[in-house]
Amino acid sequence: MLNKIKNPKDLQKIPAPDLPALCQEIRQALIQKISTLGGHLAPNLGVVELTTAIHYVFNAPVDKVVFDVSHQTYIHKMLTGRAQAFTDPKHYYDVNGFSNPAESPYDLFTLGHTSTALSLASGLAKARDLQKQKHRVVAIIGDGSLSGGQAYEALNNIAEQGGNIIIIVNDNAMSIAENHGGYYRNLEHLRLTNGQAPDNFFRAIGLNYLYEPNGNDVQALIKTLNQVKDCTTPTVIHVHTIKGCGYTPAVENPTAFHYTAPFDVATGTRANNNTPNYTQITCQYLQQRLQNDQTTVAITAATPQAFGFSTELRAKVGSQFVDVGIAEEHAVAYAAGLAKGGAHPIFGVQGSFLQRSFDQLHQDLALDNNPATLLVFGDHVHGMGGATHNGFYDIVQLGNIPNLIYLAPISKQSYLQMLDWSIEQNQHSVAIRVPDQVIDDPLPLKKFTLNARVMILGKDIAIIAVGSTFPLAQQVVTTLQTHNITPTLIDPVSVSQLDEKLLNSLAKNHHLVVTLEEGALNGGFGQKVAAYFGDQNIKVHNFGFTKGLTHDFEPNAFLKQNGLTVKNITDYIRQHI
Amino acid sequence: MLNKIKNPKDLQKIPAPDLPALCQEIRQALIQKISTLGGHLAPNLGVVELTTAIHYVFNAPVDKVVFDVSHQTYIHKMLTGRAQAFTDPKHYYDVNGFSNPAESPYDLFTLGHTSTALSLASGLAKARDLQKQKHRVVAIIGDGSLSGGQAYEALNNIAEQGGNIIIIVNDNAMSIAENHGGYYRNLEHLRLTNGQAPDNFFRAIGLNYLYEPNGNDVQALIKTLNQVKDCTTPTVIHVHTIKGCGYTPAVENPTAFHYTAPFDVATGTRANNNTPNYTQITCQYLQQRLQNDQTTVAITAATPQAFGFSTELRAKVGSQFVDVGIAEEHAVAYAAGLAKGGAHPIFGVQGSFLQRSFDQLHQDLALDNNPATLLVFGDHVHGMGGATHNGFYDIVQLGNIPNLIYLAPISKQSYLQMLDWSIEQNQHSVAIRVPDQVIDDPLPLKKFTLNARVMILGKDIAIIAVGSTFPLAQQVVTTLQTHNITPTLIDPVSVSQLDEKLLNSLAKNHHLVVTLEEGALNGGFGQKVAAYFGDQNIKVHNFGFTKGLTHDFEPNAFLKQNGLTVKNITDYIRQHI
Repeated sequence: MLNKIKNPKDLQKIPAPDLPALCQEIRQALIQKISTLGGHLAPNLGVVELTTAIHYVFNAPVDKVVFDVSHQTYIHKMLTGRAQAFTDPKHYYDVNGFSNPAESPYDLFTLGHTSTALSLASGLAKARDLQKQKHRVVAIIGDGSLSGGQAYEALNNIAEQGGNIIIIVNDNAMSIAENHGGYYRNLEHLRLTNGQAPDNFFRAIGLNYLYEPNGNDVQALIKTLNQVKDCTTPTVIHVHTIKGCGYTPAVENPTAFHYTAPFDVATGTRANNNTPNYTQITCQYLQQRLQNDQTTVAITAATPQAFGFSTELRAKVGSQFVDVGIAEEHAVAYAAGLAKGGAHPIFGVQGSFLQRSFDQLHQDLALDNNPATLLVFGDHVHGMGGATHNGFYDIVQLGNIPNLIYLAPISKQSYLQMLDWSIEQNQHSVAIRVPDQVIDDPLPLKKFTLNARVMILGKDIAIIAVGSTFPLAQQVVTTLQTHNITPTLIDPVSVSQLDEKLLNSLAKNHHLVVTLEEGALNGGFGQKVAAYFGDQNIKVHNFGFTKGLTHDFEPNAFLKQNGLTVKNITDYIRQHI
Repeated sequence: MLNKIKNPKDLQKIPAPDLPALCQEIRQALIQKISTLGGHLAPNLGVVELTTAIHYVFNAPVDKVVFDVSHQTYIHKMLTGRAQAFTDPKHYYDVNGFSNPAESPYDLFTLGHTSTALSLASGLAKARDLQKQKHRVVAIIGDGSLSGGQAYEALNNIAEQGGNIIIIVNDNAMSIAENHGGYYRNLEHLRLTNGQAPDNFFRAIGLNYLYEPNGNDVQALIKTLNQVKDCTTPTVIHVHTIKGCGYTPAVENPTAFHYTAPFDVATGTRANNNTPNYTQITCQYLQQRLQNDQTTVAITAATPQAFGFSTELRAKVGSQFVDVGIAEEHAVAYAAGLAKGGAHPIFGVQGSFLQRSFDQLHQDLALDNNPATLLVFGDHVHGMGGATHNGFYDIVQLGNIPNLIYLAPISKQSYLQMLDWSIEQNQHSVAIRVPDQVIDDPLPLKKFTLNARVMILGKDIAIIAVGSTFPLAQQVVTTLQTHNITPTLIDPVSVSQLDEKLLNSLAKNHHLVVTLEEGALNGGFGQKVAAYFGDQNIKVHNFGFTKGLTHDFEPNAFLKQNGLTVKNITDYIRQHI
């Protein structure tokens, strides 16, 4: 059936009693593709029936449908002309894992960060009303995303704006890990009372509310959606679904199958990655630290796995681990309060999501030098997804905030030393750019300072290699040495300030400084070096990433495209020696 | 009485029946000082009794008290050793207008942006619990600030965290202008039912709740605070106060007296500022635009006065003006939704607050090139307050986001042309840095393009003057001409990309490029120019602001300190000719 559906109109021709069979087919295709390629399995399995019902009842693309986060749009893609990308392995790569306007007019926005769909949908609804159009607007948001402040800001404004807008709250009792926060208890209370609990978060802020307990029953969903689709005031449908529904290993371990590597369908076994990595290193370090110091607190915003805190480990460390839910703004200011109160907070976060906290980093954390530690994961070329998860604007963001110290370790030893230093000092707000490849430091470490480190003392040419680019710089040096060029190699240690003393010393017997960073060039570290030497007799060339968005991201191609290869850098230096 | 209070202990010695007289004295001091110097009048008049009661009941600084936004801490300052700064004109400048740890141990954080106090307080409470301390934690937050998503994120987490924390919601039925959003209707409903309405936002998310209708009755407040001060689970006290209480002109026009210039106490008359300014220019332009195009929408996040939209004007333009409340994240994504839906949204905002929307600017707005227009006010040297309101990190933030075009007009004509262009095009997300001083463009405008404009064609030296620095650059040119130096003068038009063609043409007969920007040097526009010429035979020097925080901000001193004076720039150029 699935391959015959070219658009929702085709779906709507299928008799309702045949829909469960279609859902079964969709579920098989999902499991098959994701077991081969990896992807967001459990979230998509949970919304097979919901997505089918939405496209059965609503008339997209005239009616506007917006999925929050959009990692759960695989079924939406199948039902809007892209089924082949899920049924035919030769076409698996035709679509990406998120809503994508370049793929289809049914995808209105490129989405990948959470809690934004309600704002976008309310803007669409307002645009409709101003233009006196008549279509419907639907937003689908998970219970996990509802903890994000932006979703609340939007709910408030939707209540005031009025008009037709249907907000489907997909409640599977899970964020990426378990849910957290007061509002979530209200959802649970509503589930347990079949929507009848007197305290009702949605009604309290002025929205109509309806509870649908059978979120994996396509007929029940169609009935409910038909009932509200032409509402004239904003209406919340609170739908209870089962994350991972239809695949037992995913139901039993929905966190592991939230996003999964390829797996064996029969057993649910995924290949183990035994390469040493910074998630393990960080987790081991923090376990020790939490045990030895009762005032140390590890904080996550709904991604405890980013620094290795499994369910078991979280239980073990108890109140010294806090998951604030998807609430990055709160997480940073909460860390500031903890630091001010004499505790030692450590907030571990994906760099791409930390940009939600820009104001809090600037105002609450760094302005008063509150001594919290932030561990920024995934901001290197191998940690980056598509355009929504490109983790290379962090140096621009964090490196330019007054007072905030942003460190970029090149090695395991340097990273651990920075962790020690940061947690033990109480003068600065510190962020650490957790690197990718685990390497040993080529030199014995001295007492930690913010000064840059001269790793090799050469002449004429100096290479300043930020954090994760250090192995590349080492290869460049080795290659140059075969051409009898011995450059100076520098680890800048911090990317938020220049070591002016060292830079001045370079000016004496170097005529070219080359900077390397796995980050955006514009506003980044290298441009500070270029500006520092702007009116002096020393030239500077920056290697890094050109400003832009990369939808189909492949690390090696990306490095090559941006000239961050041994050959390109070596050639440049040899031409400018 | 007031001058004898050196700390809250002294306050606590005053018999309760004498407190109303003290409050009267406080009120007089407030009116006297603010009428002379200007300041936040109405918010402080509203919390005279509340602040007095807090320091009468709680034991600061052992108990931790955090005021949100902190523009309402004038009374707090009076009662914690700083009364003289309000009673003795010679000491008026001893304190600033916000919570300031450099002034007093009773001020825990430097605060100036809204909706953050609950996160900070919950961090303090957690730090207390980890250290097994016993003090109380109190947060005071206005109803207006409760629309900000961060406050909601914090409420959620406070409900989960538990323990002693007292959240005082100061409900004066006002944000800076009137309040907006669904939750606010709930507050109103609670006020009207004396706290008894069955739908209760705070209870729905798991918090204890108590209503205190007499927020300007110090005895009633003391009784209520005593009742809850030792609560063992988080408790909200919803206090109804009157904004401007005790000064009739402020009660009658609380928006005008939210922050006021000096005024005549007897009549409440404030001096009119008749200098032409960009608030008026923008407002006139938008009125016309809204009238001629039903799909144009002006958006504010609770500061409609920033672009001149008075209460009367808002009523006149009706649904084409949307105040989303203090909710900058939503505002930007809402604009993205409107733009996608075919409307023409224009979001006017203070630059210092726009940084709350960094993620939405990046992901929701610019990633898909949704064609909304953002007007960024106050990001020039005369629009900047202290460290919490320094508006000079905008070029770093907005200028480095992929796809986003950030324009910096130098003149009135250029600004209006950019507005026309931005609203009429549908390819780009555009922000415009609204300048300060209204000047006429020295050249006739051609059709708008993103290319830089050569305003004077000279040789040897080129000056690139960003937006509001153009008048300074003109003076520099005039001075240089008296020394027979004729530099090229360039208006870069956009600060988000370089006009490489123009830069290449400069290289032919110029050996020095000087950039001027009223913005942070690090990550800013000038550093891009320096990096562009980094390995070429043309030198670059950037003038702008050194990274750092400026607590006591005075525009001319700040310009001088950063070398942005005619003399300093001229001297530099003459030395490098």
